[in-house]
Amino acid sequence: MVVNLRLPALTSLFTTSFSNRYPVFVRRSQQLRRPVFSSSFSAQSTVTKTEDRVDGQRNRVQDRAVTPRSQDFNAWYLDVIDSAELADYGPVRGTMVIRPYGYAIWEAIQDYLNVKFKETGHSNMYFPQFIPYSFIEKEASHVEGFSPELALVTIGGGKELEEKLVVRPTSETIVNHMFTQWIHSYRDLPLMINQWANVTRWEMRTKPFVRTLEFLWQEGHTAHATPEEAEKEAMQMIDVYTKFAYEQAAIPVIAGRKSKVETFAGAVRTYTIEAMMGDRKALQAGTSHNLGQNFSCAFGTQFTDENGQRQHVWQTSWAISTRFVGGIIMTHGDDTGLMLPPRIAPIQVVIVPIWKKDDDKAVVLDAASSVKKVLQTAGIKVKLDDTDQRTPGWKFNFWEMKGVPLRIEIGPRDVSSQSVVISRRDVPGKQGKVFGVSMEPLSLEAYVKDKLDEIQSSLLGRATSFRDSSIVDVTSYEELKVAISEGKWARGPWSASDADELKVKEETGATIRCFPFEQPQGVKTCLMTGNPAEEVAIFAKSY
Amino acid sequence: MVVNLRLPALTSLFTTSFSNRYPVFVRRSQQLRRPVFSSSFSAQSTVTKTEDRVDGQRNRVQDRAVTPRSQDFNAWYLDVIDSAELADYGPVRGTMVIRPYGYAIWEAIQDYLNVKFKETGHSNMYFPQFIPYSFIEKEASHVEGFSPELALVTIGGGKELEEKLVVRPTSETIVNHMFTQWIHSYRDLPLMINQWANVTRWEMRTKPFVRTLEFLWQEGHTAHATPEEAEKEAMQMIDVYTKFAYEQAAIPVIAGRKSKVETFAGAVRTYTIEAMMGDRKALQAGTSHNLGQNFSCAFGTQFTDENGQRQHVWQTSWAISTRFVGGIIMTHGDDTGLMLPPRIAPIQVVIVPIWKKDDDKAVVLDAASSVKKVLQTAGIKVKLDDTDQRTPGWKFNFWEMKGVPLRIEIGPRDVSSQSVVISRRDVPGKQGKVFGVSMEPLSLEAYVKDKLDEIQSSLLGRATSFRDSSIVDVTSYEELKVAISEGKWARGPWSASDADELKVKEETGATIRCFPFEQPQGVKTCLMTGNPAEEVAIFAKSY
Repeated sequence: MVVNLRLPALTSLFTTSFSNRYPVFVRRSQQLRRPVFSSSFSAQSTVTKTEDRVDGQRNRVQDRAVTPRSQDFNAWYLDVIDSAELADYGPVRGTMVIRPYGYAIWEAIQDYLNVKFKETGHSNMYFPQFIPYSFIEKEASHVEGFSPELALVTIGGGKELEEKLVVRPTSETIVNHMFTQWIHSYRDLPLMINQWANVTRWEMRTKPFVRTLEFLWQEGHTAHATPEEAEKEAMQMIDVYTKFAYEQAAIPVIAGRKSKVETFAGAVRTYTIEAMMGDRKALQAGTSHNLGQNFSCAFGTQFTDENGQRQHVWQTSWAISTRFVGGIIMTHGDDTGLMLPPRIAPIQVVIVPIWKKDDDKAVVLDAASSVKKVLQTAGIKVKLDDTDQRTPGWKFNFWEMKGVPLRIEIGPRDVSSQSVVISRRDVPGKQGKVFGVSMEPLSLEAYVKDKLDEIQSSLLGRATSFRDSSIVDVTSYEELKVAISEGKWARGPWSASDADELKVKEETGATIRCFPFEQPQGVKTCLMTGNPAEEVAIFAKSY
Repeated sequence: MVVNLRLPALTSLFTTSFSNRYPVFVRRSQQLRRPVFSSSFSAQSTVTKTEDRVDGQRNRVQDRAVTPRSQDFNAWYLDVIDSAELADYGPVRGTMVIRPYGYAIWEAIQDYLNVKFKETGHSNMYFPQFIPYSFIEKEASHVEGFSPELALVTIGGGKELEEKLVVRPTSETIVNHMFTQWIHSYRDLPLMINQWANVTRWEMRTKPFVRTLEFLWQEGHTAHATPEEAEKEAMQMIDVYTKFAYEQAAIPVIAGRKSKVETFAGAVRTYTIEAMMGDRKALQAGTSHNLGQNFSCAFGTQFTDENGQRQHVWQTSWAISTRFVGGIIMTHGDDTGLMLPPRIAPIQVVIVPIWKKDDDKAVVLDAASSVKKVLQTAGIKVKLDDTDQRTPGWKFNFWEMKGVPLRIEIGPRDVSSQSVVISRRDVPGKQGKVFGVSMEPLSLEAYVKDKLDEIQSSLLGRATSFRDSSIVDVTSYEELKVAISEGKWARGPWSASDADELKVKEETGATIRCFPFEQPQGVKTCLMTGNPAEEVAIFAKSY
C-alpha cells in the first residue's frame, strides 16, 4: 500500500503567533534521490506533479508517495526525510541542509543534553575548527584512523599556506594542545569541558543524518589526575547518553564496550550505545572514550601531582551527533511517515478545526484557539492548523506524516458538547481515537499530558519488544551466521582474536557492536573457538 | 596605578553544585601577547611568576598585572581577556579559543536573541559550511568583497578536489541556492530562517573577539514577495539588535544606515548598530542588510506572484557575532578589569564568606549556603566562593576583575546580626558598599534584584553619558578633523561623494559609521561641499 500525501503550501509550522507570515517550504521529492548520494539508496518512488486550484488560485501542489517501510526501508527513510521536511541535500556531494523541522529535533536533543552536561560539572567552550596538519600526526593510531577522511585547507587569503590545515574531524588534538597550556598541577584537575560544533569527515558513502560530510555534534573532553577518575567519567557520560536515549528518544539502546577492533582511533576503551533500527541494522548512536594517556603523552599534557611528581593526565572524550536524528526516524517511523516521541517532538499536539458551513467557522476557530491557549499555557508544544486551503482529511494525513504524537479535532458538534476528539499517532484508526474528551481546561490539560506520557512509554515499549525479539542467543559460529542472514542481531560468548572478528565481518557483514554491560550469568564458551569466554558480544550489521 | 591580582588555582567558576570537581584553568599571561596577533597590540605588561605555598602545598601562583585602561587601552583589553579567562589563542594564526567564562557571555547573548528571532517568526536551521567556489562568483560585488578573505578546501579524502570549496565567510550564496529550490509561489513567502554557525574570514590583522579568522555568529536570511516587506524586515531586525544592545548589554549603540561605501558586499542597504568603546573607537556591533534582488537575480530565486507573474524575491540578511563580547568588554571594563551588565553576566552575585577562627567557619559557611540557596531559588546566578586556599581580600580582587556585578560578604558578626554586606562592582570602595542588609529571604531577594537592576541602568547611563560627551557636532571638514584628532566622533551634515568619503578616511582615519536614524531637525549644509544635505553622518575611527 502506498500512502499518498498531498502536501500543502505549508502556511506555518512552529511559530503560531506569526502563522500568517511564516515561511513556506515546498520541496521536490526527487531531490533526496540524487545520484551523488550513496548508490545503494537509489530506489525510486512514484513522484508526480500536478497543478491544482485552491481558492480559485493557480497553485502548485505535489502528490507524493512515501514508499512503505516494509517495501524498501531505505527509500522509505529518504522519502520521510523529504516529505516531513527534515533535511535536503547541500550543493556539495554528501552535505546536508538541516531544515527547520529536523533542526528543531536536534534542538530538543541539545536542550536536554546541555542541562545534563552542566549538571555533571562540564562547561561549554569553543575551539577553532582549523587544526595544523602536524597535530593530527602526533597520535599514531589517531592519524591512521582519520587521515583518509580529512578535508584540508591549503589556501587562505589568496595564498598557499605553509602548513595545511585540517578542518576538524574531531578535536582531541587541538584540545590537548590547549590543555597542555592550561594544566599545571593537580589543582587544575579535573578539567571538564564540552563544545557544540560542526565537524567534517570526507565520507565516501553518505546518507542524510546517518553519515554526512559535515555534521553537527557535541564533543566533551576531560582531563583527570587518575585513571580511575577518567574511567568513571567515561562511564558516567555513556550513562547520560543511555538515559537520554531511553527517556527522551524512547530508543532502547544497548550500552556496552567496543571490541579492540572497533575502538576509537586513539582511545584505550570505547563505550557505545547501539540502537536497533526498524530494518534491524544497528546504529552506533553515541560513544564515550577512555583515552588513557594516549593524547597526553603525544602532546605532553602533564601535571604535578600531590607528591610533586610530574604525570601525564588521564582523559576522556564523548560525543553525540545529528546522526541521532536519523536514529529517531528509523526507530519509530512507520508506513505513514515519521513518528516522534512526545519528549523530543517539535509539535506535540496539532489541533485541526473542522467546519463545513461558514456559520460554524468562527465558533469552531474560537474554540480551537481556546484549546490551544490552554495547552500552550500548560507548557505543551501545540500547533493550530487553521488554514482553510486544505481539508481536514488532508491535514490529518499531513501531520501524521510529520509524526506529531497527538491530534485534537474540533467540529461544531464538539463545540456544542464542549468536548474534543483526540487521536494518537501511534495507534492508527479508530482504536487510537477517543471522542468526547472534555474541553474543561484542567481536565483537558491532564488528559493530554497523560496521553503524551502514555505515547512516550508506548513507543519505548514497542521498540524494546522489537529489539528483544530480534536478538538471537547463539553458541556457535553457524548459529551466528544464521541469525545474521535472517537480519537479526546475534549475541554469544566471545574471546576469539581480532583476526576472527574480521573474518566474521568478511563472511557475514556483521561486526561486534559491543560487549554489553548487562551480561548473562554462568560459564561461557567462545562461540568461535570453544575457549572459555568472559563476556557475550553482540554482532550485527550496522549503518 | 597597576592593580596586582594574584590569581588562584580556580576551584570553581560556574557550576556550584559540583565545585569540588570543577575544572581549574590556569593561564599564562604572556599568551595573549604572541607576536602572531596584530603587531599594534604588542604592549608589554609586567608578568612575573612566583612559587607560593598554600596550605603547606607547593603550588604555582601567578602574580599578574592588568595594565590600567587609561595607560594602554589595547594592552588592557588583552590583559582582561587573559586574566578573566575569556579566551586564549588557538594554534593557527588569528584563531581564538573561547573559554568557559567568555563562552557563557556568548550563551547569554544567544539565549536572548534566539527567543526574539523565534518571536519574530524565524526558524533555526543549518546550511553546510562548504560552498562551491563558483557560487561566490555569481554575485559581482559579493565576490569582490569576500574573495581576498577566503579559506579554500582543495583536498578532500586524500584527493585534489575538482572544484575548490569555500569555507563559508557568510551564507547568502548557499542560502539562495537552496531558496531557489524551495520557493515557487507567493504562498511560499515570506521564508524566514536563522542559523547559529561558525564562519571563516582570512583576516590579516586580528584581535580576540573583535576580528578573528574564525568566529561564531548567527545569520538570519529571509525572502519576501515585495521590496517593502524586505525593508520592513531589515529594519525590524536592526531594531531587535538595538534593543538587545540597550536593554541587555547596556551598550547605547547608535543605529543607522551605512554609506554606500560601507555597505555590505551584495546589499542594497546596510543598517548597523555602532557602539562607542572605552577608547572612543567605534565598533560595528551588528548589521542588517536589505539585499534587494541582488542574490535572487544571481541565483534565479523566483516566485509566481498572485497575478501569475514570475518575480525575483526580495531578501534580507542580518548578523551578530562573538565580536559583541569584545564590545561588552571594551564598553564597561575599567582599570580593575571586566565589568559585566547583570543581564548578561554568567555570575551575577558572588558570595565571599569571611572567618578567622576555625570556630566561626562552620557557622559562616552555613549562613553563606543559605543565602546562596535563597538567591538561586529566586533565579539569580550566584556563586559561593568557599575555598579556604585564598584570603577574602584576594577573592574580592579576583571577582572584581571577573566583572561580577554584586558581591555579598558574610562574616561571624553578620551571622549574629542576621545581615550581610553588599558591594557593587560599578561603584568602587566604600561608596558602593552597604552594611547590614537583612538576610531575611524575601527582603534579601528584593534587595539584590533591585541592586542588579540599578547596576544595569547605571552601566547604560554611564556609557550613554560617555558616548554623548564624545560626539561633536561639526559643520566643516576642519571641525571634523579636529574632533577626530581628539579621538572623538564627529557628527555633521553630509551629501558629498564617495570620493570625498574616501578622502576623509585617508586624511583622518575616520569613516562614516552611519547616517543615524535619529536626525536633527532643520536645514543642513554638507560639511564638505556646502551643498544642501538631507542627513547628518557620524564619522569615527573604528575597529
